[in-house]
Amino acid sequence: MSNAPLILLSHSMLAPVEFALTAAGYRVARGWELEDGQKAEIRAIVHAGEFVLTPDFLKSLPQLGLIANISAGYDGVNVPWCRENGIEVTHSQGGNADDVADQAMGLLIGAWRDIVKGDRVVREGRWNNADRMGPRPGLSGRKVGIMGLGHIGKAVARRCEAFDMKVSWWGPNPKPDIAWPRAETLLDLATDCDILVVACRADVSNRGAVSEAVIKAVGPRGMIVNVSRGSVIDEEALIVALKAGELGRAALDVFAQEPTPPERWADVPNTVLTPHTAGGTVDSIPRMVAQALENVRLFLAGEPVITPAT
Amino acid sequence: MSNAPLILLSHSMLAPVEFALTAAGYRVARGWELEDGQKAEIRAIVHAGEFVLTPDFLKSLPQLGLIANISAGYDGVNVPWCRENGIEVTHSQGGNADDVADQAMGLLIGAWRDIVKGDRVVREGRWNNADRMGPRPGLSGRKVGIMGLGHIGKAVARRCEAFDMKVSWWGPNPKPDIAWPRAETLLDLATDCDILVVACRADVSNRGAVSEAVIKAVGPRGMIVNVSRGSVIDEEALIVALKAGELGRAALDVFAQEPTPPERWADVPNTVLTPHTAGGTVDSIPRMVAQALENVRLFLAGEPVITPAT
Repeated sequence: MSNAPLILLSHSMLAPVEFALTAAGYRVARGWELEDGQKAEIRAIVHAGEFVLTPDFLKSLPQLGLIANISAGYDGVNVPWCRENGIEVTHSQGGNADDVADQAMGLLIGAWRDIVKGDRVVREGRWNNADRMGPRPGLSGRKVGIMGLGHIGKAVARRCEAFDMKVSWWGPNPKPDIAWPRAETLLDLATDCDILVVACRADVSNRGAVSEAVIKAVGPRGMIVNVSRGSVIDEEALIVALKAGELGRAALDVFAQEPTPPERWADVPNTVLTPHTAGGTVDSIPRMVAQALENVRLFLAGEPVITPAT
Repeated sequence: MSNAPLILLSHSMLAPVEFALTAAGYRVARGWELEDGQKAEIRAIVHAGEFVLTPDFLKSLPQLGLIANISAGYDGVNVPWCRENGIEVTHSQGGNADDVADQAMGLLIGAWRDIVKGDRVVREGRWNNADRMGPRPGLSGRKVGIMGLGHIGKAVARRCEAFDMKVSWWGPNPKPDIAWPRAETLLDLATDCDILVVACRADVSNRGAVSEAVIKAVGPRGMIVNVSRGSVIDEEALIVALKAGELGRAALDVFAQEPTPPERWADVPNTVLTPHTAGGTVDSIPRMVAQALENVRLFLAGEPVITPAT
């Protein structure tokens, strides 16, 4: 084993993957207990793309040639800088789109139909039959606007159609093969929807794109669902709008800082919050790990990787 | 107004409907403050079908000719007895099937994907990134078995297909026009599914039909969702099975007793509970009230009602 390639597993969250790397014949360096002596030998990093890898750190790994993200997103990795410095970057393509879309729908229904709130009502003994005639909106006929129509956005759109919701979307590039109408701008999409689902890939171009103006356009009867990255939403503006009743509801799996501090949300009404669990299931994780391992194998064999970051 | 027909609004939960009855030109007797002197004049009852109307009470209303349920279900009304005693019974047909199916899906995803639990984890400061690689199942490819394929069951089936789940169903009567496969028995359905969704109409024939044996057939990795009535499930057996790990999860909008006592669920793991809110939204309630009012109007005019109970 001493001559086997050394692969860096970047984050303790990925500890369950160590077994797969070892089984594939690699030596593993653990990022959370990395020794300086290991750095010279590291050939590839198996990574979760939302965690930041700084150029300074990457420059300290002279043999590094690949960052294989297990995740679909890779907002923590500066891809142009990596490519300029001879480091390939790969990610998961479609490996967990269904799971993320499922969670988006769970968040959407859970917040819109007061499922999460209802669970608290029952457990706290506050069930009052008179409330059952209360003014809760349904989903049929409501307009969903999807920001980002990649694998995940399309999977969300298909699901929303089964609920008889009206689908439109926005992304920076037109997609001629897509039947769902594309809004001219993100602000137009937000203005003309009841529920805005953020499903885009996060990068520097869309940091804070769901701005105060976009949030207010969704409005007091509207809802924002985020399964992309916290960076895409101006989270401060979101919180202010929820407190002021200028945004109706929000259902979030991702946050500006993760884990998000609970006190940040203690007095923010009408929210459903999950701990960035949309993408990881017993079905998707093995697929995504296998994709990353295949990219590592191909890179070490000097062959083209299968799912390069774009 | 003194000669206008007197309509009994049976339950305080229905208080918001009083305005619609008054606007339609009727006098209204409130069931929750009923005076004996009003009984002789009552022509029809506008009712929520899960509340029990006893033959003794109905016999005390000599001019009663109609029970118009605003709800789809009418398990609190003995229809054969009513018909024998000259009282027609109507209910809502399809008026809130989409809303109930939406809530069923919110419960299903909310429990299966730990959305409700995740919200507690975030708020209680228990978010641990290592848990994100934990063994949570996805939905794609999982088998859903639907008990009762009426308006609501079909609406659930259509939604589940958009999540790439495999649909089968059971009901007492074959439905030759339905493509989804019908299990031979409820026990077979429970044995061969990951998630059992109870969406049937509740009546004396299916009281406790989701028995200890059916619950154990769904099993430790399975889940039961109930948007029908609490009476269909042996709730004691359900609680025992959840505590023993013999049933994986349960997501319930309806209960043996409503409101269900919170202490009953305090030490029962892996549940999501909502306060019987599946059917009532700003979209469905006006439709269902309009259907009941139309039945009242037709009955008083001596014409056939549109949606008789069967």
